[in-house]
Amino acid sequence: MSHPVRLAINGATGRMGQVLVQLVKGDKRFVLVAAMVSANSALLGQPVFPGDDAPTYTNSWPGAGALDVVIDFSGPAGLAAALTYCESHGVALVTGTTGLDPTFGQRLAVSSQRMALLRSANFSLGVAVLTRLLREAAATLPSWDLDIIEAHHNRKEDAPSGTALALGEAAAEARGTSLSESGVYSREGRTGPRALGTIGFAVVRGGDVVGEHEAWLMGKGERIELTHRATDRSIFARGALEAAHWLSGRPPGEYDIDTMLTERASR
Amino acid sequence: MSHPVRLAINGATGRMGQVLVQLVKGDKRFVLVAAMVSANSALLGQPVFPGDDAPTYTNSWPGAGALDVVIDFSGPAGLAAALTYCESHGVALVTGTTGLDPTFGQRLAVSSQRMALLRSANFSLGVAVLTRLLREAAATLPSWDLDIIEAHHNRKEDAPSGTALALGEAAAEARGTSLSESGVYSREGRTGPRALGTIGFAVVRGGDVVGEHEAWLMGKGERIELTHRATDRSIFARGALEAAHWLSGRPPGEYDIDTMLTERASR
Amino acid sequence: MSHPVRLAINGATGRMGQVLVQLVKGDKRFVLVAAMVSANSALLGQPVFPGDDAPTYTNSWPGAGALDVVIDFSGPAGLAAALTYCESHGVALVTGTTGLDPTFGQRLAVSSQRMALLRSANFSLGVAVLTRLLREAAATLPSWDLDIIEAHHNRKEDAPSGTALALGEAAAEARGTSLSESGVYSREGRTGPRALGTIGFAVVRGGDVVGEHEAWLMGKGERIELTHRATDRSIFARGALEAAHWLSGRPPGEYDIDTMLTERASR
Amino acid sequence: MSHPVRLAINGATGRMGQVLVQLVKGDKRFVLVAAMVSANSALLGQPVFPGDDAPTYTNSWPGAGALDVVIDFSGPAGLAAALTYCESHGVALVTGTTGLDPTFGQRLAVSSQRMALLRSANFSLGVAVLTRLLREAAATLPSWDLDIIEAHHNRKEDAPSGTALALGEAAAEARGTSLSESGVYSREGRTGPRALGTIGFAVVRGGDVVGEHEAWLMGKGERIELTHRATDRSIFARGALEAAHWLSGRPPGEYDIDTMLTERASR
Repeated sequence: MSHPVRLAINGATGRMGQVLVQLVKGDKRFVLVAAMVSANSALLGQPVFPGDDAPTYTNSWPGAGALDVVIDFSGPAGLAAALTYCESHGVALVTGTTGLDPTFGQRLAVSSQRMALLRSANFSLGVAVLTRLLREAAATLPSWDLDIIEAHHNRKEDAPSGTALALGEAAAEARGTSLSESGVYSREGRTGPRALGTIGFAVVRGGDVVGEHEAWLMGKGERIELTHRATDRSIFARGALEAAHWLSGRPPGEYDIDTMLTERASR
Repeated sequence: MSHPVRLAINGATGRMGQVLVQLVKGDKRFVLVAAMVSANSALLGQPVFPGDDAPTYTNSWPGAGALDVVIDFSGPAGLAAALTYCESHGVALVTGTTGLDPTFGQRLAVSSQRMALLRSANFSLGVAVLTRLLREAAATLPSWDLDIIEAHHNRKEDAPSGTALALGEAAAEARGTSLSESGVYSREGRTGPRALGTIGFAVVRGGDVVGEHEAWLMGKGERIELTHRATDRSIFARGALEAAHWLSGRPPGEYDIDTMLTERASR
Repeated sequence: MSHPVRLAINGATGRMGQVLVQLVKGDKRFVLVAAMVSANSALLGQPVFPGDDAPTYTNSWPGAGALDVVIDFSGPAGLAAALTYCESHGVALVTGTTGLDPTFGQRLAVSSQRMALLRSANFSLGVAVLTRLLREAAATLPSWDLDIIEAHHNRKEDAPSGTALALGEAAAEARGTSLSESGVYSREGRTGPRALGTIGFAVVRGGDVVGEHEAWLMGKGERIELTHRATDRSIFARGALEAAHWLSGRPPGEYDIDTMLTERASR
Repeated sequence: MSHPVRLAINGATGRMGQVLVQLVKGDKRFVLVAAMVSANSALLGQPVFPGDDAPTYTNSWPGAGALDVVIDFSGPAGLAAALTYCESHGVALVTGTTGLDPTFGQRLAVSSQRMALLRSANFSLGVAVLTRLLREAAATLPSWDLDIIEAHHNRKEDAPSGTALALGEAAAEARGTSLSESGVYSREGRTGPRALGTIGFAVVRGGDVVGEHEAWLMGKGERIELTHRATDRSIFARGALEAAHWLSGRPPGEYDIDTMLTERASR
């Protein structure tokens, strides 16, 4: 049917970039036009994979009209370059770069007046769907006690996980509160009875667990458990590709994964 | 705040009726005005629970203006009597009576022009919420494989459970198909690879498990599990009370639990 | 086959006593000979259940040769009386009385020279079996990370549960350590990577969850989860009856549930 | 401490062989002495991984005294060659080759008089431990209903999985019966109540699930769930390495994984 989406990967030698390169190679929805790296990359000029038709790692952005969408997992400096390119050529941009300076938000808002921009800290489609479901369940069953359990590998250094906190925040918002008011991050010793309206967290660490999140909503005589299990880190790259495919050709504006899912759900 | 909802229980000596009587006794949102039984009940004239202010089991419907809502778990004949009463007095009616003659549907449609009517085969709020969530997940992740696992006690004689089938049907509808097209009810022997778009069922039987339902949506490298666990049969009576409280005072029309939940979720 | 076991329940009007009375009524393995209560009980002389053949609540122990076994859930004073009776008549005794003075241990040791004595803080057979399985798994997979997750109702005031701690202690012993050395009772904030050989706990509170315990053993690329779910508090009474049936007729000595299970497992 | 175990991999270019090569490269407990392939392999003479100290794929077995143990995942012909070599040099052999002719069993018995031989159809340590635990639970709780649930990816063509059947057979044996007497492989339609003593199976298929097995033992008011989750196919290679390390230096005889685990558990 439609022609394949013409894609650049910005930050192509990074961990996410490499997974994206592998996935795109076998995905007929896309053609990889450019694999962007920094000016001092040792791989500059090398082919991104064996074969005659492979693009080479480059630091030069393609000319006008060559691209439909850029996926960026490069870092703040790389993202700034991608924004400059995308806004002047009206190319859509999907970015998962984190650790941005707060002032960056305004830059993104300005850029998105001239291009479609989708930004997310977690590109797992499953987590995005779970977040939507949890929001609805929390609002629909407002009196049910809610706890979130998460499990990760034994090298993870913080607790609860960022995703668990984001799930809790989404549920809190759906109930008209916030985690800073209602979060209970651990329970040990003489805790007393559970306070009404709180959102609790329970943390498991061990082995090489990629990431599991469960939200329990507990009523009288029944409960609902909403669970996401990741078994492969490639899901983040897969989700970024889905987002890129969906974003390609959209009018300028700021988008997020939830917009994409809302559209799908109502289709 | 508001005055308690004035309630009649129709079929008050039945299994559900008895649980309702016990729950209403301690629930300040309600006052039990009438406990309706059949004309030949042995308990006619007996108090429904010890104490001076307890109503007695009766076969006479109260006078005009005495009731806000009737909860009916009586059977086809009892439901017919309740409809006659409710439509002439504009009293709301919640009914869980099953096994109705197909022609009853038209009777209900006519009655609901003069009274608020809510009917359900399963009053568990948790199951109703799970159904909504599953519908959304199935639509939002259309390419993920979907299977439904259910577990019940060792005396259950059919498989899969009616609730599992209803969940599967809801998911199928959300994907633009139906169970009769896409359902796979068992897997044994040389099944071959899973056919795209099918919805599978897996059945566990044992002990005194009240009822558990899990819907698994399985993608690449991740999956979502939506689970409902019932531990107490009183959840059906609790759900009927929630519905009665919500229905009381509504304009005439046909309602269902999902209408109630939609309203809650958007609040 | 064998004649029914002649049973006395000590503390028959207590919460556990009442459940035991109900269970024994329908259990052909037993005949309830005596329902012991304290001298000032308001129910003294009343039948324990409707019917001509029901024993009455009493404070007088039966004569010699009338009993095979006593189940005690009475309290320290009641237990002392039961011990005096059982040791002088060689009657087996099952007790779940907790909160005993430390010196009581010696009294029990002396008594058990003249009678079979089985004592436990938790008569759930499922928990006892889970403890055995966890001990074996922890020893057999010594390098796998171990965490214990438990969930209880929203009125529970301490965390982790006593059963979770007992499971952890059993696992620690199986690995040649103890919880005081290896227990990690909560994780919040900058925890750093998981320390080798620790045993972690995660706590969920909500609804009316009766009690669930999961032990996760996490290796590389695989894990084992051992789970116990209780849905009904009667399991403790059922376990005490199993223990009483098993203990009846045994030679003097101190027994525990694990002895009973070991015998079963090797049968 | 001890010198590294000198290892040959037989069938080194097969799927399992390649995973073994990768794992051994980073495992200081082993030194890879020989990577055996068939005489017509295209990789004959190539190094098994980049680097000067890498062995090359070969079809010539090393001389006397060069090896401690051989791991074989080659096929019947390759296994026959490995047996001939191992029995004449007294080298231990771990084999996962399946699809053997029935007469091969006698050959193995004879060979094992001169060498330590360990054979298994599934080298996952977690599955081996789960099997042990299930055997014990099934024997200790003989009256609890037992069902086995398994989930695998959507390309799997048979149901239930071989591992699920092996778990069921182990449980059946522990209860003095067999699957051919007690197995119930699917439930659909009017099944009637669950027959006493049966062992049921429930099958889930979808996504890229590597393999999950749950055994549910269901009593009154409680149940036990024993679960194994695999997230990475490398667990089979890891288990084979564990077995090889354990087997190295043992006296002649037939061993299995359970022997190894029993020794560990009693240590």
